[in-house]
Amino acid sequence: MFVLATTTLTKESREYLIRQYPAVEFQFLEDVDQAGARLSEADILLTFGSDLTVAHIKRAKKLKWIMLLSAGMDEMPLQAIKENGIKLTNVRAIHQIPMAEYAISMLLNAYRQNDTLWRNQYAREWDSSLEIKEISNRTMTIVGAGAIGEELARLAKAFRMKTIGVSRSGKPSDNFDQMYQTNEILKGLKEADFVVSILPSTEETLYIYKQEHFKEMKDSAVFLNMGRGDVVQSETLIMALDQNQISHAILDVFEQEPLPKTHPLWQHPKVTMTPHISGVSLHYIPRALELFEKNLKTYLKDGSLVVNLIDLKRGY
Amino acid sequence: MFVLATTTLTKESREYLIRQYPAVEFQFLEDVDQAGARLSEADILLTFGSDLTVAHIKRAKKLKWIMLLSAGMDEMPLQAIKENGIKLTNVRAIHQIPMAEYAISMLLNAYRQNDTLWRNQYAREWDSSLEIKEISNRTMTIVGAGAIGEELARLAKAFRMKTIGVSRSGKPSDNFDQMYQTNEILKGLKEADFVVSILPSTEETLYIYKQEHFKEMKDSAVFLNMGRGDVVQSETLIMALDQNQISHAILDVFEQEPLPKTHPLWQHPKVTMTPHISGVSLHYIPRALELFEKNLKTYLKDGSLVVNLIDLKRGY
Repeated sequence: MFVLATTTLTKESREYLIRQYPAVEFQFLEDVDQAGARLSEADILLTFGSDLTVAHIKRAKKLKWIMLLSAGMDEMPLQAIKENGIKLTNVRAIHQIPMAEYAISMLLNAYRQNDTLWRNQYAREWDSSLEIKEISNRTMTIVGAGAIGEELARLAKAFRMKTIGVSRSGKPSDNFDQMYQTNEILKGLKEADFVVSILPSTEETLYIYKQEHFKEMKDSAVFLNMGRGDVVQSETLIMALDQNQISHAILDVFEQEPLPKTHPLWQHPKVTMTPHISGVSLHYIPRALELFEKNLKTYLKDGSLVVNLIDLKRGY
Repeated sequence: MFVLATTTLTKESREYLIRQYPAVEFQFLEDVDQAGARLSEADILLTFGSDLTVAHIKRAKKLKWIMLLSAGMDEMPLQAIKENGIKLTNVRAIHQIPMAEYAISMLLNAYRQNDTLWRNQYAREWDSSLEIKEISNRTMTIVGAGAIGEELARLAKAFRMKTIGVSRSGKPSDNFDQMYQTNEILKGLKEADFVVSILPSTEETLYIYKQEHFKEMKDSAVFLNMGRGDVVQSETLIMALDQNQISHAILDVFEQEPLPKTHPLWQHPKVTMTPHISGVSLHYIPRALELFEKNLKTYLKDGSLVVNLIDLKRGY
């Protein structure tokens, strides 16, 4: 069995895999083009996927399984993979923990005036007269309530929040007190103190938040977007903030990334922005390799893949 | 029944109490000295306690119950209250929610580089290459595991942490995986990623953290103190940071408060400091009045006090 890894892994990870699976041959490269002729010998490919083309798939005659170290499959040659009978697994839900932590952390910061406290530390200013709010017992609406939303809702429940979800199916889900379908989104926004958007970028979600949506929210609502930036136009969002339709926006994703230097969102007084880092985590690669190993163990035993096998007909 | 309130309450709170308890006469003052002769007519006193002297207690001939709007009783004339047969209730555990939120928020900030992200926003710097750690799945040791520690441990468990407590009794407690007695504190510190100190100021806790304690902690440990400042000398703590015995300190309390402008802790690169605000909350007075009302209702009915009645012999 020959595993070709076409992405940078730490020395520690590489040595661990070699030690742990003596029956497997590993080759570790930085991208798929370094593989040359060896691509045609690979049984298993470990990849981030963005450098993989139809031509690579055609050359990989022995390939039976691609382990994708990413959750998004937009850039993958899915049709060619399907036609060549190659199985595909990914790292779905790998962003759950860091993104749920991001949301809780940023909402706590917004409610607890941590930016002012920070500035005061740098200025050696002892001011304990700040108004500090609690996120506990508030209402959180999660729009795009998938795997990440479920983890966030679980934490929100620990903070004794009421949790409302908006999802395509509208089906009840653990840790959600209420669930709406996407076409009922306005109902879900009405009572939220926190609106957390984790929507992907699709035709249906493009500019889904319009003026009427922000008008429907509480004046005191905090809007947090860590899904995709094209769910709302910057102008719409800035107007909602300037007209006090909501109180604050926390943005990790933007219509254009990196956000242009002159964009008004950078220094809008009601905006906290971060550079698309909500899913960044030191634990990403170890966690991805853990998922790989779960499948590798069963694959070596009986050829089965038990975790995150993609149905190539449906595409997810 | 005459209730004398000798602390500033909002108009809303005052009107609410008057409306809700028509059988009760309320007088709202800013401090106890404004009360004059009316002090001797009060059946119930609502106070923050810090302005209350033995002389006041002696003059309050009819007083049966003091509702203390604070959790700490260090400044109360407890002996005189006991001798005059006055019952005392307080707002024990009122700091649970804000202090638990404070700890989670500050630990998330330390692990997620939120200060760098903030500086980058102000500088319009798009840098997504930061190393971001997760607080999930870490080990938290809570030294002084009382009511606040229990709430914090409950949240820590939601973040899938291992939780270790250190308390006087060392008795097992919900949401703690392990519990040590105070004299076993070193054992509790060894494996902690986060050491959270919520110890009160007593003879036993004075400078309880010595060099050996920080040496026992992981190099990567974050030490958070939101109990009292005199559990550790600043010099000891700064040495531990400078010698890399721990990686970061988050301090809300200090040996001297406000911290003097020239103190090295203000701008130590490994210190995040806040001005004794971990317990500050917009919900404080509403929550305190809720506790007062619970007791007032039973007191009006049958003279009983059901919540947070202090045993004046034990002093807590």
